Amino acid sequence: MKTIQLHPGKPLQKALELRETDTPVPGDGQVLVRMHAASLNFRDLIVAQGAYPGTSKERRLIPLSDGAGEVVAIGNDVTRWQPGDRVVASFFQDWLDGRFQPAHMQSALGGGVDGVLAEYRLFAQTGLARIPAHLSFEQAATLPCAALTAWHALFERAALLPGETVLVLGTGGVSMFALQLAQLAGAKVIATSSSDDKLKRVAELGATGLVNYRKQPEWDKAVLDLTNGHGVDQVIEVGGAGTFPRSLAAARTGGRVSLIGRLTGIEDRIDPRPIMAKGLTVYGIYVGSVAMLERMMRGIEASGLVPIIDRRFTIEQTSDAYVYLESGKHFGKVVISI
Amino acid sequence: MKTIQLHPGKPLQKALELRETDTPVPGDGQVLVRMHAASLNFRDLIVAQGAYPGTSKERRLIPLSDGAGEVVAIGNDVTRWQPGDRVVASFFQDWLDGRFQPAHMQSALGGGVDGVLAEYRLFAQTGLARIPAHLSFEQAATLPCAALTAWHALFERAALLPGETVLVLGTGGVSMFALQLAQLAGAKVIATSSSDDKLKRVAELGATGLVNYRKQPEWDKAVLDLTNGHGVDQVIEVGGAGTFPRSLAAARTGGRVSLIGRLTGIEDRIDPRPIMAKGLTVYGIYVGSVAMLERMMRGIEASGLVPIIDRRFTIEQTSDAYVYLESGKHFGKVVISI
Amino acid sequence: MKTIQLHPGKPLQKALELRETDTPVPGDGQVLVRMHAASLNFRDLIVAQGAYPGTSKERRLIPLSDGAGEVVAIGNDVTRWQPGDRVVASFFQDWLDGRFQPAHMQSALGGGVDGVLAEYRLFAQTGLARIPAHLSFEQAATLPCAALTAWHALFERAALLPGETVLVLGTGGVSMFALQLAQLAGAKVIATSSSDDKLKRVAELGATGLVNYRKQPEWDKAVLDLTNGHGVDQVIEVGGAGTFPRSLAAARTGGRVSLIGRLTGIEDRIDPRPIMAKGLTVYGIYVGSVAMLERMMRGIEASGLVPIIDRRFTIEQTSDAYVYLESGKHFGKVVISI
Amino acid sequence: MKTIQLHPGKPLQKALELRETDTPVPGDGQVLVRMHAASLNFRDLIVAQGAYPGTSKERRLIPLSDGAGEVVAIGNDVTRWQPGDRVVASFFQDWLDGRFQPAHMQSALGGGVDGVLAEYRLFAQTGLARIPAHLSFEQAATLPCAALTAWHALFERAALLPGETVLVLGTGGVSMFALQLAQLAGAKVIATSSSDDKLKRVAELGATGLVNYRKQPEWDKAVLDLTNGHGVDQVIEVGGAGTFPRSLAAARTGGRVSLIGRLTGIEDRIDPRPIMAKGLTVYGIYVGSVAMLERMMRGIEASGLVPIIDRRFTIEQTSDAYVYLESGKHFGKVVISI
Repeated sequence: MKTIQLHPGKPLQKALELRETDTPVPGDGQVLVRMHAASLNFRDLIVAQGAYPGTSKERRLIPLSDGAGEVVAIGNDVTRWQPGDRVVASFFQDWLDGRFQPAHMQSALGGGVDGVLAEYRLFAQTGLARIPAHLSFEQAATLPCAALTAWHALFERAALLPGETVLVLGTGGVSMFALQLAQLAGAKVIATSSSDDKLKRVAELGATGLVNYRKQPEWDKAVLDLTNGHGVDQVIEVGGAGTFPRSLAAARTGGRVSLIGRLTGIEDRIDPRPIMAKGLTVYGIYVGSVAMLERMMRGIEASGLVPIIDRRFTIEQTSDAYVYLESGKHFGKVVISI
Repeated sequence: MKTIQLHPGKPLQKALELRETDTPVPGDGQVLVRMHAASLNFRDLIVAQGAYPGTSKERRLIPLSDGAGEVVAIGNDVTRWQPGDRVVASFFQDWLDGRFQPAHMQSALGGGVDGVLAEYRLFAQTGLARIPAHLSFEQAATLPCAALTAWHALFERAALLPGETVLVLGTGGVSMFALQLAQLAGAKVIATSSSDDKLKRVAELGATGLVNYRKQPEWDKAVLDLTNGHGVDQVIEVGGAGTFPRSLAAARTGGRVSLIGRLTGIEDRIDPRPIMAKGLTVYGIYVGSVAMLERMMRGIEASGLVPIIDRRFTIEQTSDAYVYLESGKHFGKVVISI
Repeated sequence: MKTIQLHPGKPLQKALELRETDTPVPGDGQVLVRMHAASLNFRDLIVAQGAYPGTSKERRLIPLSDGAGEVVAIGNDVTRWQPGDRVVASFFQDWLDGRFQPAHMQSALGGGVDGVLAEYRLFAQTGLARIPAHLSFEQAATLPCAALTAWHALFERAALLPGETVLVLGTGGVSMFALQLAQLAGAKVIATSSSDDKLKRVAELGATGLVNYRKQPEWDKAVLDLTNGHGVDQVIEVGGAGTFPRSLAAARTGGRVSLIGRLTGIEDRIDPRPIMAKGLTVYGIYVGSVAMLERMMRGIEASGLVPIIDRRFTIEQTSDAYVYLESGKHFGKVVISI
Repeated sequence: MKTIQLHPGKPLQKALELRETDTPVPGDGQVLVRMHAASLNFRDLIVAQGAYPGTSKERRLIPLSDGAGEVVAIGNDVTRWQPGDRVVASFFQDWLDGRFQPAHMQSALGGGVDGVLAEYRLFAQTGLARIPAHLSFEQAATLPCAALTAWHALFERAALLPGETVLVLGTGGVSMFALQLAQLAGAKVIATSSSDDKLKRVAELGATGLVNYRKQPEWDKAVLDLTNGHGVDQVIEVGGAGTFPRSLAAARTGGRVSLIGRLTGIEDRIDPRPIMAKGLTVYGIYVGSVAMLERMMRGIEASGLVPIIDRRFTIEQTSDAYVYLESGKHFGKVVISI
């Protein structure tokens, strides 16, 4: 079978090597999945640098956490799946339900353990979720990391109410999923971008408030204006340099700020007074559990939500896909067909 | 000004008397509202019998809790409203936010205190909520009791998630609002009725599961079938005779049953084992606070939800409206224009 | 090794047979525990009748869910335990954390699977919790079912606040643990019993309100009197005949009723109006997860709580222990030393 | 009657002037309280500088939020109180229950409105709470701001469980109340101080973990050592310079950080990665509502908790009291008898 091997730390064009290896055989409780598609996240660029927790420049691994495929064989004691089932893999293979534990960290696909960019991949039967009927493998492959992060932020730590307003920053994967998921729960969305073209597309996706932060560098004030001075109920703070203080300013009294994607060591000079004075709650969000993934899949199936795919690459074009993601030109997810 | 006076305990045709009284003047912190519409709830029939808590056959009162109108005058220290504002009155005038307290009970409009079926009505400035722009007075007048009860059940005691399934029993006001509100939050709805005609209308409103409980008296089993044997995530149990045990049976393990509208002394023979064995949570729901009403109004405004009005009456036809409601023929709300 | 084999459905004196079998060997991920003590619950009487879910008069099994012992051997891949560790077994072996699922039911020790009344017992490494340092094996053996049920009711579904009042019914295992656990969280306890002698002992354990329900059959009114008419914040309703309606009456507006131990088919004639009129929440409680067990163990360790043991039996006296439990004369737990 | 008038911005010795004014008369819904004691908070030093939100160097006001006294007269429509009742005033007079709203900010005693340092003071009947029977006026006067802040952090935003560990920073008022309140709920406490003498006193109050941050500047590592590397369940972060990053480091995965008292513009250079990587929740806490105050009073009454008073001053010594508080030598609360 074909698989990609990542050499963290090398230049992207040389870091991703296509190899042939033996197809594995499922052991007890294991499921063999023929992977059909994978998707990239910003996190995968950090992994490629060897800077992701649990990775290093010494250890080679199969990259990417997000993949979808079809069950082709099952081991003994597998009760949940049978050949033909269409599945995605859970980002954290060991975080099944309940509280996140430090030990779960090591089970992150494409980080602590090998990822999904291979023709075949073994998973524990507890580490998979069913793909909604209306989605293709490529569409489903976009969900396990970015969409689940957005779902976790919007629905699992605190309840998003119909009629509330959510602020999403930029047009990356998590933000665009938050835009879509918030709307299917009856909430309104304000979005920021540096590009009027992207804002136009965001408006087509349903955002009712648009802020070009290049034209309005004090974008928190623009957000307050759009909410009659009240501020938004929830901010999906995906963490560019210097955004956190403005996110605090843009939240309403009693509001929620979901802190996501702070993988790199950007330090912000923060005046924490608004957290106290406005009684804010700041939630750290790090993808989610298998149980959350299952709940999200039900929500996506019920609503017919379709992920936004920007561009497709083949497994042979993996390096090109990484370079394209790094360019920041995308709007929506970058997918690799396997 | 015109007002209706209710003599609880009399036959409906004689119990509701149209009278002329003086128009009141707002005191400190009070708001005078020109009422334009009111709506009826099943509870108002109980009040008319003198059987509602806080009412008696001796005390006459202005009936109905649900009304909408326009602010026409304000007293001193009124900061929230000004003439021209379109408002509904809160069912509980004194339950502003936070926990329900026994003392709040006495502030129920059309029960512990006079209701809204009058041309003019004084309210404390804290007992009103703004009408969404897309709704008429008649549409808004349907919301304070039945819709808020459904909102409270779906969103305030536990979080309804996109993709969850809600079971509504029958086609009364609370059930139809629950049908509409659950959908705008991304949930799916199963509805029951004794009439295929009504089920057809419920399907047009978006219900994806339909059960005629006359044809399928063991409707809990039909609901289990519709959910692959899992049961629904939440039941809106509005309390006909003998429904509670089946509602418990129709809920999934870990599910929620919202108990609503148990105003009369129907006793059920209940086997409480499913509550324990399935780890259910049963929530008693009794309308809601002013803060909940405001949150619901935002949700309705964001979604453009339009209440279902069955029939309109004039204030002179008040008795006819009551008799019509009692007949049970309606689908949606019965409204009185003032 | 010695083990007890239960023949459900036989008279107690003949149903429990002492046998010799081979000592098992731990497989991958398994732990061998030398059991030192077990304790009985009311549920074990139901199992002995063959009436417990998942049991039958045909299937023989090792009885009892509650046991404590010492790790003596571990299989491959066991990372959590090593020989010498003192452990209790979790009631549900498969409910690790998060939501209860129907499949977890079959993993109940001494019910769906063999229990702990044996000299040696294999467990998955995920199905155990560490014993607090201040407790003996006998004391620890009382905790997995009754204490965890009380913990779950008091702390896991809703927050018990310091200064709140909890009502416990009777002096069975769950009620006495609820008495102790509620107090260590700063709450006050009202207890009922049919015996003044038992009430005296309950007072020594810290209960500040005492009601003899034989002398005061309308004990709900006595509870209201003890709370200045407000009612208690939480009721631990362990389910004798006819108690549920009085529990609803004894709860404050907005209060919580935890429904526990409804294993047998007692039907109550219930007027559900108080659930709605007082906005109560009724929680069905069925023991708890391994994660809850671990949290409880921390709470017990921090507080130095010591379980109340009524009487000790040897494994050879197992039938006597069952008969004694059935007599209802005990105050606190009945323990079997192995 | 005597009252103190504060001139914000003046040196402390000149800023606090003793004056004679007329005793007010209660209007509708108002209660006249003979104040017997008041207590100081760090916040009152900020007010004295004119730097507190809603204050200025131009506006003179009666200072201090925390006071206790006896009801001596009531106005019309007062149903909750009668002469002789012993009461404390709520920090926020208008935040009764439910969500904090921006408008509530202006109702802070000794800030947006006049405070309690006067022989007599009028309050709305809704702005008071009853004093537990075991507390003197001086003891009760310490509770409304610091103790309620600690209560809010520990019990109202998330549930503190028996057996959890709470970290308190320094020995100020909020931290010492958090130490006492956490213990009465069955939790363990780790405390930091720059003084071994103070740590000794903290140990006498029950803290089981002690860290001298002068001797161990990397005190977060000492806290991790005290918790077997896991970190604490909750941090009461009262906000000295540079503490926030260490508080994040000292919290367990999934832990809670309560951010309190950030009144001044200290900016921290924060690396927000731990918030995300450990899935922390950061709660901004700003005193609390009247309903929270009532709940805390019940908890204090049930437990017999006695606040720690460091030193008492007379109203004539008000300036001395402020200067003493500013010196930072106190351990526990500084009280003024009126």
